[in-house]
Amino acid sequence: MKLLQEKIKQEGRVLKGNVLKVDAFLNHQVDVFLMQQIGKEFVKRFSTEQITKVLTLESSGIAPAAMVALELGVPLLVARKCKSLTLTDELVTAEVYSFTKQETNQIMISKQFVAKDERFLIIDDFLANGEAAKGLLDLVEKCSATAVGIGIVIEKSFQNGRKWLNEQGIHVESLARIASLNNNTVTFVVEEMK
Amino acid sequence: MKLLQEKIKQEGRVLKGNVLKVDAFLNHQVDVFLMQQIGKEFVKRFSTEQITKVLTLESSGIAPAAMVALELGVPLLVARKCKSLTLTDELVTAEVYSFTKQETNQIMISKQFVAKDERFLIIDDFLANGEAAKGLLDLVEKCSATAVGIGIVIEKSFQNGRKWLNEQGIHVESLARIASLNNNTVTFVVEEMK
Repeated sequence: MKLLQEKIKQEGRVLKGNVLKVDAFLNHQVDVFLMQQIGKEFVKRFSTEQITKVLTLESSGIAPAAMVALELGVPLLVARKCKSLTLTDELVTAEVYSFTKQETNQIMISKQFVAKDERFLIIDDFLANGEAAKGLLDLVEKCSATAVGIGIVIEKSFQNGRKWLNEQGIHVESLARIASLNNNTVTFVVEEMK
Repeated sequence: MKLLQEKIKQEGRVLKGNVLKVDAFLNHQVDVFLMQQIGKEFVKRFSTEQITKVLTLESSGIAPAAMVALELGVPLLVARKCKSLTLTDELVTAEVYSFTKQETNQIMISKQFVAKDERFLIIDDFLANGEAAKGLLDLVEKCSATAVGIGIVIEKSFQNGRKWLNEQGIHVESLARIASLNNNTVTFVVEEMK
Protein backbone atom coordinates (compact mmCIF):
# COMPACT_ATOMS: atom_id res chain seq x y z
CA MET A 1 0.00 0.00 0.00
CA LYS A 2 1.79 3.02 -1.36
CA LEU A 3 0.34 5.63 1.03
CA LEU A 4 1.46 3.56 4.03
CA GLN A 5 4.93 2.90 2.61
CA GLU A 6 5.41 6.62 2.05
CA LYS A 7 4.31 7.36 5.59
CA ILE A 8 6.79 4.80 6.97
CA LYS A 9 9.58 6.28 4.84
CA GLN A 10 8.74 9.82 5.96
CA GLU A 11 7.82 9.39 9.62
CA GLY A 12 9.09 5.97 10.72
CA ARG A 13 12.38 5.74 12.59
CA VAL A 14 14.66 2.73 12.86
CA LEU A 15 15.95 2.05 16.38
CA LYS A 16 18.48 -0.48 17.65
CA GLY A 17 17.53 -4.14 17.58
CA ASN A 18 15.43 -4.04 14.41
CA VAL A 19 12.78 -1.86 16.04
CA LEU A 20 10.72 0.35 13.74
CA LYS A 21 9.23 3.30 15.60
CA VAL A 22 5.92 4.43 14.10
CA ASP A 23 4.69 6.45 17.06
CA ALA A 24 3.99 9.38 14.75
CA PHE A 25 1.02 7.77 12.98
CA LEU A 26 0.19 4.31 14.34
CA ASN A 27 1.20 3.47 17.93
CA HIS A 28 0.89 6.71 19.87
CA GLN A 29 -0.24 9.52 17.61
CA VAL A 30 -2.73 7.99 15.18
CA ASP A 31 -3.37 9.26 11.66
CA VAL A 32 -7.05 8.35 11.51
CA PHE A 33 -7.41 9.24 7.82
CA LEU A 34 -4.61 6.74 7.06
CA MET A 35 -6.38 4.21 9.33
CA GLN A 36 -9.56 4.69 7.27
CA GLN A 37 -7.65 4.04 4.03
CA ILE A 38 -6.06 0.98 5.66
CA GLY A 39 -9.54 -0.22 6.62
CA LYS A 40 -10.77 0.12 3.04
CA GLU A 41 -7.69 -1.69 1.68
CA PHE A 42 -8.16 -4.68 4.02
CA VAL A 43 -11.83 -4.92 3.09
CA LYS A 44 -10.85 -5.01 -0.59
CA ARG A 45 -8.24 -7.72 -0.01
CA PHE A 46 -10.60 -9.94 1.98
CA SER A 47 -13.70 -9.09 -0.07
CA THR A 48 -14.75 -12.69 -0.73
CA GLU A 49 -14.52 -13.92 2.84
CA GLN A 50 -17.98 -13.19 4.33
CA ILE A 51 -16.49 -11.80 7.53
CA THR A 52 -18.91 -11.55 10.47
CA LYS A 53 -16.58 -9.97 13.05
CA VAL A 54 -13.16 -8.33 13.31
CA LEU A 55 -10.78 -9.46 16.06
CA THR A 56 -7.76 -7.51 17.32
CA LEU A 57 -5.53 -7.24 20.38
CA GLU A 58 -5.41 -4.13 22.56
CA SER A 59 -4.23 -1.51 22.19
CA SER A 60 -2.38 -0.55 18.98
CA GLY A 61 -4.56 -2.80 16.83
CA ILE A 62 -7.79 -1.07 17.85
CA ALA A 63 -7.70 2.00 15.59
CA PRO A 64 -7.06 0.16 12.29
CA ALA A 65 -9.35 -2.72 13.28
CA ALA A 66 -12.20 -0.33 14.14
CA MET A 67 -11.93 1.19 10.66
CA VAL A 68 -12.05 -2.27 9.06
CA ALA A 69 -15.14 -3.16 11.11
CA LEU A 70 -16.81 0.14 10.20
CA GLU A 71 -16.13 -0.39 6.50
CA LEU A 72 -17.45 -3.97 6.70
CA GLY A 73 -20.44 -3.08 8.87
CA VAL A 74 -19.62 -5.75 11.48
CA PRO A 75 -18.70 -5.56 15.19
CA LEU A 76 -15.15 -5.48 16.51
CA LEU A 77 -13.94 -7.76 19.29
CA VAL A 78 -10.89 -6.57 21.26
CA ALA A 79 -8.87 -9.31 22.97
CA ARG A 80 -7.65 -8.01 26.32
CA LYS A 81 -4.21 -8.38 27.84
CA CYS A 82 -5.31 -7.84 31.43
CA LYS A 83 -8.13 -9.24 33.46
CA SER A 84 -10.72 -6.55 34.01
CA LEU A 85 -13.41 -6.07 36.59
CA THR A 86 -16.14 -6.63 34.03
CA LEU A 87 -14.53 -9.19 31.72
CA THR A 88 -15.51 -12.27 33.68
CA ASP A 89 -17.96 -14.39 31.69
CA GLU A 90 -16.96 -17.47 29.69
CA LEU A 91 -13.34 -16.38 29.40
CA VAL A 92 -11.20 -18.06 26.76
CA THR A 93 -7.46 -17.49 27.12
CA ALA A 94 -4.31 -17.99 25.08
CA GLU A 95 -0.64 -17.38 25.75
CA VAL A 96 1.50 -14.89 23.87
CA TYR A 97 5.26 -14.96 24.25
CA SER A 98 7.05 -11.64 23.93
CA PHE A 99 10.58 -11.92 22.54
CA THR A 100 11.24 -8.31 23.49
CA LYS A 101 10.22 -8.67 27.13
CA GLN A 102 11.09 -12.39 27.30
CA GLU A 103 7.89 -13.21 29.11
CA THR A 104 4.63 -15.00 28.43
CA ASN A 105 1.35 -13.14 28.85
CA GLN A 106 -2.25 -14.20 28.69
CA ILE A 107 -4.73 -12.70 26.25
CA MET A 108 -8.45 -13.29 26.53
CA ILE A 109 -11.88 -12.91 25.00
CA SER A 110 -15.33 -13.71 26.28
CA LYS A 111 -16.93 -16.59 24.39
CA GLN A 112 -20.36 -15.00 24.73
CA PHE A 113 -19.41 -12.67 21.85
CA VAL A 114 -18.48 -15.49 19.52
CA ALA A 115 -21.42 -16.88 17.55
CA LYS A 116 -21.41 -20.49 16.40
CA ASP A 117 -20.60 -19.74 12.76
CA GLU A 118 -18.49 -16.65 13.44
CA ARG A 119 -15.99 -15.82 10.68
CA PHE A 120 -13.28 -13.60 12.12
CA LEU A 121 -10.89 -11.37 10.26
CA ILE A 122 -7.90 -10.81 12.57
CA ILE A 123 -6.24 -7.38 12.34
CA ASP A 124 -3.00 -6.37 14.04
CA ASP A 125 -0.54 -3.49 13.71
CA PHE A 126 2.67 -5.55 13.47
CA LEU A 127 3.72 -9.04 12.45
CA ALA A 128 7.23 -10.08 13.51
CA ASN A 129 7.65 -13.55 14.99
CA GLY A 130 3.91 -14.09 14.86
CA GLU A 131 3.38 -14.67 18.57
CA ALA A 132 0.37 -12.34 18.85
CA ALA A 133 -1.13 -13.80 15.66
CA LYS A 134 -0.70 -17.33 17.05
CA GLY A 135 -2.43 -16.29 20.27
CA LEU A 136 -5.36 -14.72 18.42
CA LEU A 137 -5.72 -17.78 16.15
CA ASP A 138 -5.66 -19.94 19.28
CA LEU A 139 -8.54 -17.93 20.80
CA VAL A 140 -10.60 -18.33 17.61
CA GLU A 141 -9.94 -22.08 17.51
CA LYS A 142 -10.82 -22.53 21.20
CA CYS A 143 -14.18 -20.87 20.43
CA SER A 144 -14.74 -23.30 17.51
CA ALA A 145 -15.00 -20.30 15.19
CA THR A 146 -13.24 -19.65 11.87
CA ALA A 147 -10.39 -17.24 11.15
CA VAL A 148 -10.76 -16.28 7.48
CA GLY A 149 -7.40 -14.52 7.48
CA ILE A 150 -5.04 -12.06 9.10
CA GLY A 151 -4.57 -8.45 8.04
CA ILE A 152 -1.30 -6.86 9.14
CA VAL A 153 -0.44 -3.18 8.86
CA ILE A 154 3.36 -3.60 8.98
CA GLU A 155 5.11 -6.93 8.46
CA LYS A 156 8.75 -7.51 9.32
CA SER A 157 9.30 -10.03 6.56
CA PHE A 158 12.81 -10.81 7.80
CA GLN A 159 11.35 -12.42 10.93
CA ASN A 160 9.53 -15.76 11.13
CA GLY A 161 5.86 -14.87 11.59
CA ARG A 162 4.82 -14.73 7.93
CA LYS A 163 6.57 -17.99 7.10
CA TRP A 164 4.82 -19.82 9.96
CA LEU A 165 1.40 -18.44 8.97
CA ASN A 166 1.97 -19.43 5.34
CA GLU A 167 2.86 -22.96 6.45
CA GLN A 168 -0.46 -23.17 8.30
CA GLY A 169 -2.28 -22.15 5.13
CA ILE A 170 -3.57 -18.91 6.67
CA HIS A 171 -4.53 -16.12 4.27
CA VAL A 172 -2.27 -13.22 5.28
CA GLU A 173 -2.40 -9.72 3.80
CA SER A 174 0.25 -7.23 4.93
CA LEU A 175 -0.02 -3.65 3.73
CA ALA A 176 3.68 -2.88 4.15
CA ARG A 177 6.28 -5.66 4.02
CA ILE A 178 9.70 -4.75 5.32
CA ALA A 179 12.63 -6.73 3.94
CA SER A 180 15.27 -5.11 6.12
CA LEU A 181 15.95 -2.37 8.64
CA ASN A 182 19.73 -2.56 8.18
CA ASN A 183 21.80 0.65 8.16
CA ASN A 184 18.91 2.56 9.73
CA THR A 185 17.05 2.30 6.43
CA VAL A 186 13.64 0.81 5.73
CA THR A 187 13.76 -1.47 2.68
CA PHE A 188 10.45 -2.90 1.49
CA VAL A 189 9.91 -6.32 -0.06
CA VAL A 190 9.65 -5.91 -3.82
CA GLU A 191 6.38 -7.42 -4.89
CA GLU A 192 4.90 -7.84 -8.31
CA MET A 193 1.92 -5.60 -8.90
CA LYS A 194 -1.29 -7.52 -8.40
CA MET B 1 -27.91 10.62 23.35
CA LYS B 2 -30.93 8.43 22.85
CA LEU B 3 -29.27 5.68 20.78
CA LEU B 4 -26.62 5.21 23.47
CA GLN B 5 -29.14 5.23 26.34
CA GLU B 6 -31.16 2.55 24.56
CA LYS B 7 -28.05 0.45 24.03
CA ILE B 8 -27.16 0.75 27.73
CA LYS B 9 -30.72 -0.25 28.72
CA GLN B 10 -30.70 -3.22 26.35
CA GLU B 11 -27.16 -4.56 26.63
CA GLY B 12 -25.60 -3.04 29.76
CA ARG B 13 -25.53 -5.07 32.95
CA VAL B 14 -25.28 -3.79 36.50
CA LEU B 15 -22.77 -5.66 38.67
CA LYS B 16 -21.98 -5.38 42.39
CA GLY B 17 -20.27 -2.22 43.59
CA ASN B 18 -21.93 0.21 41.17
CA VAL B 19 -20.17 -1.37 38.19
CA LEU B 20 -21.88 -1.03 34.82
CA LYS B 21 -20.76 -3.73 32.39
CA VAL B 22 -20.85 -2.56 28.78
CA ASP B 23 -18.62 -5.26 27.32
CA ALA B 24 -21.23 -5.96 24.66
CA PHE B 25 -20.72 -2.70 22.75
CA LEU B 26 -17.97 -0.53 24.26
CA ASN B 27 -15.22 -2.21 26.32
CA HIS B 28 -14.71 -5.61 24.72
CA GLN B 29 -17.02 -6.09 21.78
CA VAL B 30 -17.29 -2.71 20.07
CA ASP B 31 -20.30 -1.52 18.09
CA VAL B 32 -18.39 0.60 15.57
CA PHE B 33 -21.55 2.07 14.01
CA LEU B 34 -22.54 3.35 17.47
CA MET B 35 -18.97 4.67 17.92
CA GLN B 36 -19.34 6.57 14.64
CA GLN B 37 -22.60 8.14 15.82
CA ILE B 38 -20.91 8.99 19.14
CA GLY B 39 -18.10 10.64 17.19
CA LYS B 40 -20.55 12.79 15.23
CA GLU B 41 -22.40 13.78 18.42
CA PHE B 42 -19.20 14.93 20.18
CA VAL B 43 -18.18 16.96 17.13
CA LYS B 44 -21.58 18.67 17.19
CA ARG B 45 -21.34 19.44 20.91
CA PHE B 46 -17.82 20.91 20.64
CA SER B 47 -18.36 22.52 17.23
CA THR B 48 -17.11 25.98 18.20
CA GLU B 49 -13.87 24.87 19.82
CA GLN B 50 -11.32 24.77 16.95
CA ILE B 51 -9.94 21.43 18.08
CA THR B 52 -6.53 20.50 16.63
CA LYS B 53 -6.09 17.04 18.20
CA VAL B 54 -8.06 14.42 20.13
CA LEU B 55 -6.53 12.90 23.27
CA THR B 56 -7.61 9.66 24.92
CA LEU B 57 -6.26 6.98 27.26
CA GLU B 58 -5.68 3.39 26.13
CA SER B 59 -7.46 1.18 25.56
CA SER B 60 -11.26 1.54 25.84
CA GLY B 61 -11.18 5.21 24.84
CA ILE B 62 -9.50 4.51 21.50
CA ALA B 63 -12.50 3.40 19.41
CA PRO B 64 -14.80 6.35 20.22
CA ALA B 65 -11.87 8.82 20.15
CA ALA B 66 -10.73 7.58 16.72
CA MET B 67 -14.24 8.24 15.35
CA VAL B 68 -14.21 11.77 16.81
CA ALA B 69 -10.80 12.44 15.23
CA LEU B 70 -11.98 11.05 11.88
CA GLU B 71 -15.09 13.23 11.92
CA LEU B 72 -13.01 16.30 12.84
CA GLY B 73 -10.19 15.54 10.40
CA VAL B 74 -7.49 15.83 13.10
CA PRO B 75 -4.98 13.31 14.54
CA LEU B 76 -5.59 11.24 17.65
CA LEU B 77 -3.06 11.01 20.48
CA VAL B 78 -3.30 7.94 22.74
CA ALA B 79 -1.86 8.33 26.23
CA ARG B 80 -0.17 5.08 27.24
CA LYS B 81 -0.40 3.27 30.54
CA CYS B 82 2.83 1.32 30.14
CA LYS B 83 6.27 2.32 29.05
CA SER B 84 6.95 0.91 25.62
CA LEU B 85 10.09 0.10 23.72
CA THR B 86 9.50 2.92 21.26
CA LEU B 87 7.82 5.53 23.47
CA THR B 88 10.96 7.15 24.79
CA ASP B 89 11.24 10.73 23.52
CA GLU B 90 10.28 13.77 25.59
CA LEU B 91 7.96 11.78 27.86
CA VAL B 92 5.46 13.72 29.94
CA THR B 93 3.83 11.74 32.74
CA ALA B 94 0.91 12.08 35.12
CA GLU B 95 -0.47 9.92 37.89
CA VAL B 96 -3.87 8.29 37.87
CA TYR B 97 -5.29 6.78 41.03
CA SER B 98 -7.57 3.78 40.59
CA PHE B 99 -10.23 3.47 43.31
CA THR B 100 -11.06 -0.02 42.08
CA LYS B 101 -7.52 -1.35 42.23
CA GLN B 102 -6.45 1.04 45.00
CA GLU B 103 -3.20 1.83 43.25
CA THR B 104 -1.59 4.75 41.44
CA ASN B 105 -0.42 4.30 37.87
CA GLN B 106 1.50 6.51 35.50
CA ILE B 107 0.13 7.59 32.15
CA MET B 108 2.27 9.25 29.52
CA ILE B 109 2.47 11.04 26.21
CA SER B 110 5.40 12.20 24.13
CA LYS B 111 5.66 15.98 24.01
CA GLN B 112 6.92 15.86 20.44
CA PHE B 113 3.32 15.30 19.30
CA VAL B 114 2.02 18.39 21.09
CA ALA B 115 2.30 21.57 19.05
CA LYS B 116 2.66 24.90 20.79
CA ASP B 117 -0.92 26.05 20.23
CA GLU B 118 -2.47 22.58 20.40
CA ARG B 119 -6.16 22.56 21.36
CA PHE B 120 -7.05 19.08 22.65
CA LEU B 121 -10.47 17.54 22.97
CA ILE B 122 -10.18 14.79 25.60
CA ILE B 123 -12.37 11.71 25.01
CA ASP B 124 -12.88 8.85 27.45
CA ASP B 125 -15.31 5.97 27.80
CA PHE B 126 -16.24 6.47 31.47
CA LEU B 127 -16.29 9.30 34.01
CA ALA B 128 -16.67 8.22 37.64
CA ASN B 129 -14.40 9.89 40.20
CA GLY B 130 -12.59 11.73 37.44
CA GLU B 131 -9.13 10.34 38.13
CA ALA B 132 -8.35 9.51 34.47
CA ALA B 133 -9.72 12.91 33.38
CA LYS B 134 -7.51 14.67 35.95
CA GLY B 135 -4.47 12.74 34.67
CA LEU B 136 -5.20 13.63 31.05
CA LEU B 137 -5.75 17.31 31.94
CA ASP B 138 -2.47 17.21 33.84
CA LEU B 139 -0.64 15.91 30.74
CA VAL B 140 -2.12 18.71 28.60
CA GLU B 141 -1.14 21.35 31.16
CA LYS B 142 2.40 19.99 31.48
CA CYS B 143 2.74 20.39 27.70
CA SER B 144 1.51 24.01 27.94
CA ALA B 145 -1.33 23.11 25.60
CA THR B 146 -5.08 23.78 25.93
CA ALA B 147 -7.85 21.32 26.77
CA VAL B 148 -10.99 22.73 25.16
CA GLY B 149 -13.18 20.19 26.92
CA ILE B 150 -13.86 16.58 27.83
CA GLY B 151 -16.24 14.26 26.02
CA ILE B 152 -17.43 11.27 28.03
CA VAL B 153 -19.39 8.34 26.65
CA ILE B 154 -20.90 7.22 29.98
CA GLU B 155 -20.92 9.39 33.11
CA LYS B 156 -21.70 8.03 36.56
CA SER B 157 -23.27 11.23 37.77
CA PHE B 158 -23.60 9.87 41.32
CA GLN B 159 -19.81 9.91 41.68
CA ASN B 160 -17.60 12.97 42.09
CA GLY B 161 -15.86 13.41 38.72
CA ARG B 162 -18.40 15.65 37.02
CA LYS B 163 -18.68 17.94 40.05
CA TRP B 164 -14.91 18.38 40.23
CA LEU B 165 -14.62 19.13 36.50
CA ASN B 166 -17.46 21.67 36.71
CA GLU B 167 -15.69 23.39 39.60
CA GLN B 168 -12.58 23.74 37.43
CA GLY B 169 -14.68 25.37 34.73
CA ILE B 170 -14.02 22.55 32.24
CA HIS B 171 -16.54 22.10 29.42
CA VAL B 172 -17.81 18.54 29.88
CA GLU B 173 -20.21 16.75 27.56
CA SER B 174 -21.43 13.29 28.58
CA LEU B 175 -23.57 11.34 26.14
CA ALA B 176 -25.22 9.19 28.81
CA ARG B 177 -25.50 10.43 32.40
CA ILE B 178 -26.37 7.78 34.95
CA ALA B 179 -28.12 8.96 38.11
CA SER B 180 -28.17 5.59 39.82
CA LEU B 181 -27.44 1.89 39.43
CA ASN B 182 -29.48 0.91 42.47
CA ASN B 183 -31.62 -2.25 42.40
CA ASN B 184 -29.71 -3.50 39.34
CA THR B 185 -31.42 -0.82 37.29
CA VAL B 186 -29.90 1.93 35.20
CA THR B 187 -31.58 5.27 35.88
CA PHE B 188 -30.51 8.20 33.72
CA VAL B 189 -30.27 11.82 34.82
CA VAL B 190 -33.34 13.64 33.59
CA GLU B 191 -32.15 16.57 31.54
CA GLU B 192 -34.10 19.30 29.87
CA MET B 193 -33.99 19.01 26.11
CA LYS B 194 -31.44 21.41 24.68
